[in-house]
Amino acid sequence: MPLSVAVSGASGYAGGEILRLLAAHPEVEIRTVTAHANAGQPLIDHQPHLRSLRHLTLQPSTPEVLAGHDIVFLALPHGQSGQYTEALADTGLVIDAGADHRLTSAEDWAAFYGGDFHDAWTYGVPELIVDGAKQRERLVGASRIAAPGCNASTVALSLAPGVAAGVIDPGDIVSVLAVGPSGAGKSAKTTLLASEILGSANPYAIGGTHRHIPEIRQALRGAGAAGDIRISFTPVLVPMSRGILATSTAPIAPGVTDAEVREAWQSAYGDETFVQLLPEGSFPRTADVVGANTALMGLAVDRAAGRVVVVTAVDNLAKGTAGAAIQSMNIALGLPEAQGLSVNGVAP
Amino acid sequence: MPLSVAVSGASGYAGGEILRLLAAHPEVEIRTVTAHANAGQPLIDHQPHLRSLRHLTLQPSTPEVLAGHDIVFLALPHGQSGQYTEALADTGLVIDAGADHRLTSAEDWAAFYGGDFHDAWTYGVPELIVDGAKQRERLVGASRIAAPGCNASTVALSLAPGVAAGVIDPGDIVSVLAVGPSGAGKSAKTTLLASEILGSANPYAIGGTHRHIPEIRQALRGAGAAGDIRISFTPVLVPMSRGILATSTAPIAPGVTDAEVREAWQSAYGDETFVQLLPEGSFPRTADVVGANTALMGLAVDRAAGRVVVVTAVDNLAKGTAGAAIQSMNIALGLPEAQGLSVNGVAP
Amino acid sequence: MPLSVAVSGASGYAGGEILRLLAAHPEVEIRTVTAHANAGQPLIDHQPHLRSLRHLTLQPSTPEVLAGHDIVFLALPHGQSGQYTEALADTGLVIDAGADHRLTSAEDWAAFYGGDFHDAWTYGVPELIVDGAKQRERLVGASRIAAPGCNASTVALSLAPGVAAGVIDPGDIVSVLAVGPSGAGKSAKTTLLASEILGSANPYAIGGTHRHIPEIRQALRGAGAAGDIRISFTPVLVPMSRGILATSTAPIAPGVTDAEVREAWQSAYGDETFVQLLPEGSFPRTADVVGANTALMGLAVDRAAGRVVVVTAVDNLAKGTAGAAIQSMNIALGLPEAQGLSVNGVAP
Amino acid sequence: MPLSVAVSGASGYAGGEILRLLAAHPEVEIRTVTAHANAGQPLIDHQPHLRSLRHLTLQPSTPEVLAGHDIVFLALPHGQSGQYTEALADTGLVIDAGADHRLTSAEDWAAFYGGDFHDAWTYGVPELIVDGAKQRERLVGASRIAAPGCNASTVALSLAPGVAAGVIDPGDIVSVLAVGPSGAGKSAKTTLLASEILGSANPYAIGGTHRHIPEIRQALRGAGAAGDIRISFTPVLVPMSRGILATSTAPIAPGVTDAEVREAWQSAYGDETFVQLLPEGSFPRTADVVGANTALMGLAVDRAAGRVVVVTAVDNLAKGTAGAAIQSMNIALGLPEAQGLSVNGVAP
Repeated sequence: MPLSVAVSGASGYAGGEILRLLAAHPEVEIRTVTAHANAGQPLIDHQPHLRSLRHLTLQPSTPEVLAGHDIVFLALPHGQSGQYTEALADTGLVIDAGADHRLTSAEDWAAFYGGDFHDAWTYGVPELIVDGAKQRERLVGASRIAAPGCNASTVALSLAPGVAAGVIDPGDIVSVLAVGPSGAGKSAKTTLLASEILGSANPYAIGGTHRHIPEIRQALRGAGAAGDIRISFTPVLVPMSRGILATSTAPIAPGVTDAEVREAWQSAYGDETFVQLLPEGSFPRTADVVGANTALMGLAVDRAAGRVVVVTAVDNLAKGTAGAAIQSMNIALGLPEAQGLSVNGVAP
Repeated sequence: MPLSVAVSGASGYAGGEILRLLAAHPEVEIRTVTAHANAGQPLIDHQPHLRSLRHLTLQPSTPEVLAGHDIVFLALPHGQSGQYTEALADTGLVIDAGADHRLTSAEDWAAFYGGDFHDAWTYGVPELIVDGAKQRERLVGASRIAAPGCNASTVALSLAPGVAAGVIDPGDIVSVLAVGPSGAGKSAKTTLLASEILGSANPYAIGGTHRHIPEIRQALRGAGAAGDIRISFTPVLVPMSRGILATSTAPIAPGVTDAEVREAWQSAYGDETFVQLLPEGSFPRTADVVGANTALMGLAVDRAAGRVVVVTAVDNLAKGTAGAAIQSMNIALGLPEAQGLSVNGVAP
Repeated sequence: MPLSVAVSGASGYAGGEILRLLAAHPEVEIRTVTAHANAGQPLIDHQPHLRSLRHLTLQPSTPEVLAGHDIVFLALPHGQSGQYTEALADTGLVIDAGADHRLTSAEDWAAFYGGDFHDAWTYGVPELIVDGAKQRERLVGASRIAAPGCNASTVALSLAPGVAAGVIDPGDIVSVLAVGPSGAGKSAKTTLLASEILGSANPYAIGGTHRHIPEIRQALRGAGAAGDIRISFTPVLVPMSRGILATSTAPIAPGVTDAEVREAWQSAYGDETFVQLLPEGSFPRTADVVGANTALMGLAVDRAAGRVVVVTAVDNLAKGTAGAAIQSMNIALGLPEAQGLSVNGVAP
Repeated sequence: MPLSVAVSGASGYAGGEILRLLAAHPEVEIRTVTAHANAGQPLIDHQPHLRSLRHLTLQPSTPEVLAGHDIVFLALPHGQSGQYTEALADTGLVIDAGADHRLTSAEDWAAFYGGDFHDAWTYGVPELIVDGAKQRERLVGASRIAAPGCNASTVALSLAPGVAAGVIDPGDIVSVLAVGPSGAGKSAKTTLLASEILGSANPYAIGGTHRHIPEIRQALRGAGAAGDIRISFTPVLVPMSRGILATSTAPIAPGVTDAEVREAWQSAYGDETFVQLLPEGSFPRTADVVGANTALMGLAVDRAAGRVVVVTAVDNLAKGTAGAAIQSMNIALGLPEAQGLSVNGVAP
């Protein structure tokens, strides 16, 4: 018997991608989809690409509606997950695609989000090195999972191997990300209008204000960073609907050879399916991971600059959010980790 | 009587933008346009947007054809300008939009370009701080001008004020640029096909190999950098035809206040028409400078990261290349500096 | 002394383009800019590309504020122009970029717009053939001008020569337009979000419902159409911020030769600056008219299909709206018709 | 045991999409991939999104290399398929994604393609009405299949139901298509450069010259058109990598009601998985079928224009080419028709 699933926030972009992946997953049945303002309307009016789900109607996102499923996905703006805690107490697996359960530090939460702080759940980035092992181990059997912030997990995956191996200095990281506007959600804001984004590169959250910064620091601390983690983080909206291309650099640790640098990443990801280090001299493009659960990574050691450069391409909605959620679900439930997920992108 | 002008490389993107600006310039007459493979064809077949020039035919790019004008613009691939030196000996003003006359170091030339080294000409970035003054002063009366590399001048303008004032450390600069493909020229390469660029962010020249790196170092040395200049430089092609959004960061120099940082840029550019520092908290978008000769700059001091962040938007073909060339021409000839140039962009 | 100008709706796309063109016009001074919700804010916050106008503050769009100028531009949603009629009674020239004064038929107004009907003003498409002459003649000395609908004027200019010369049958016109989203205005609607438009072609107003249909019919009736004018009209949003590429076809009239067809357009536009028929076999691209006041037109006679095909490229904000308004202003005031307008586009 | 497959033209866009779909197909094993100029190189260098196939090397496209597989896909420029006929005589199933085996008329071939004419193979559009039945029936057990032209099948599917039911007049069809540049293939032509396509709508093959015209006429004749089929056909390149949005109109047949019109399409496609008629008032967007094997169709009856309007969205590489090929393969081999194919698109 398939596992019954409910997805809240089903009319948004993250919710839509969760549904797209679940629709192709052989072990689950999408029983319930919910929304706030759009409740009562056909799902297909809001996700016209999900033709196989055109029989579904959006129900209200109440705790009662979400209760009673084997698995619940919360794809809500931050600050809204808490209200469901009690009603979902008996739900076997809850995966929050929002930010509410990512941070372990109440102080960071207060500084970057504000409002009620909630306990951190198991972080849904299986390939991340945490305390010398993969986060995957913690996800086995987990019942509450926090899917990562898309930019945060991209940068964390980019640098964790180097931090864990001590080949880069996490005290002076610089990350600049070209990101597609779907990461900003389906909000009717004039700054996100096509006329504002087409033909333009638009920076935002500059100078240390982006909410994914504490999440990156937390992940790299977990990877084993000693001392301060400092990161200059700048996202730039560019005219592609999906995708993150993160260029991250950090100083080469003293006395480390180029081969040792590459070996850190190679040993971390050499056996992974969904995080792949490209051969020397190769670098990824976001188009190649569209729709895929794959993070593609290229690495250069720039001796003249004294820095390691890691360029990582991720589909913000797939591997960055919904794919990470499904992959974590698979692990938590003991299903094949890659089930329902594609390593190949849709290109061109 | 208007000044007679010849433009070589007139069928390419840089040549086309030079022509677009010259066509709106009241003091010049475009007498000759030349090309290599396309010689003999109507200009309008290659520049269909230049309707006012549809009477012109592309002539061969021979020294004889280019000789005999008051002003000659060379918009050729690097390595080709040298052949015209002798034939243009009597030409009052020659402006090279290629790289041949930008670098003062034969060593840099050999390392990043190769082939014959040529003397550097007066660098065509009027607002750049050089030895405590503006480059503008050197351009007055100049007869040989090297228009800048678009990425190089964008980064140089971004950081020169901080370097000159000693408020940032040029020993650990990181620049990541979102750039449009027109900067790569009108070359029939599969990597530049629309299908490869649309919906994708594509990095290139990663890890210290980009040819604009020595040009940036040279400019910042001119701005007064003491000690080593080290720069990690990563350009990323994004799906917009024009534009550079350069995110550049450098460590805050010890003991410097936020106000002192801002003051360095404010005093450098406060009186400039075409390089504008935006108010605190404001950052530029490339769309706002399309077709304009304007570099828009936003500045943040990120104390948590220990870095100054400068984000600069430039139209690579306009202020980055052709606009810089025309502005330099105006200065060299004693014409009003802004003649034929727009400070306003075409947006949305 | 320059003419004083006020622009209402100055924070929107049409208002912004009117301002961009006026800022480059030597005979006018932009004295007043107004808005509704954004009144009190700096103009530059809403039009960050208009750097030369950063001293202006948006004032409320009240009749009192708009009164007392030599020229007033109304760039408002339809239905709002009427309230200013009385206050602007003494204003020498009022140009409405909205729809309120375009239609001569109260019936058409009721069917396609609804609400109060207002008298038609002089239609601001100088090159349009009306009763055997150019509309230009009617614009000389006009004091009230209705700038055209961008799609409507594009299709009307495309077909009027053929209708006037009797070489096509206006009883079975089919027009399909690829249009950029800026034509839909700066409205915070989810359907206009970048994520919805990027990588997609989205049709709208299908099956005879688009508001520009009666305006096209009216123009073609003016051009001399005998009998019914029937038009199947389908606009398709495509991922470019500006531009209209209108493909319009109509049956070849019986007994007409290919040469006679071409001659109809050639004789209509052969002497025009801003409407240009391309040579046989050439067809226009929207990129070539970005920022320009130019309509580029290509023509084919498809004998196998029995139809004339006219493909016209226009910048919806420029020649389609603001450029038509400024050009009409120039004519009305006896200024050089091309003043402040560019025939060249910004490309690539 | 899985079926062994060879794909020629594997470094191009059509070949890449065939491989992407085959890689997700449970019944086949991709044994051989071939190319011309790129033979000897790793497939992954040319299809960097096909991570699961990074073990494959491109072999030369010789008959010997392609022979000996259960299934061979030819994704070659037209005119090249013929050379393989003999060598593949024993191959159970050959599917040509090129044009060589689509047309039944040698005259049409000569007029639109030229060169040697080859026999037509079974046309790979299962949902097409042919002689009162679906083409699917002919595909069962077929050994030689011609995958359709992407534009041709889109227009044919759009209109065949109306032609078959006699509710539209095929004597005056007008189709205008917004198409992505991937349909033009991975050819290094300057007209297909990103700088030429971004921000622009570019028409091509205007006035009856496009090679898909005879293929549409042939399909509609098969659907039952009596008398002449005449079609005005205009494709317009727009800045999206994939997708076709075809707006097709034809005169309403005399005496036919709106309900009868809709019923023609409803009855043709009501039971289909991959061709779906949207409810009245709904129209498709290309984004909703990206990567999917789905043709989404919207229909309007425009009485004022006297025309039926059908708007159809297709992914040119998927349903338009590779998806049609795989779907046809499934039918030919008696596999489940939808195997390895997705009805859901990847959006936004």
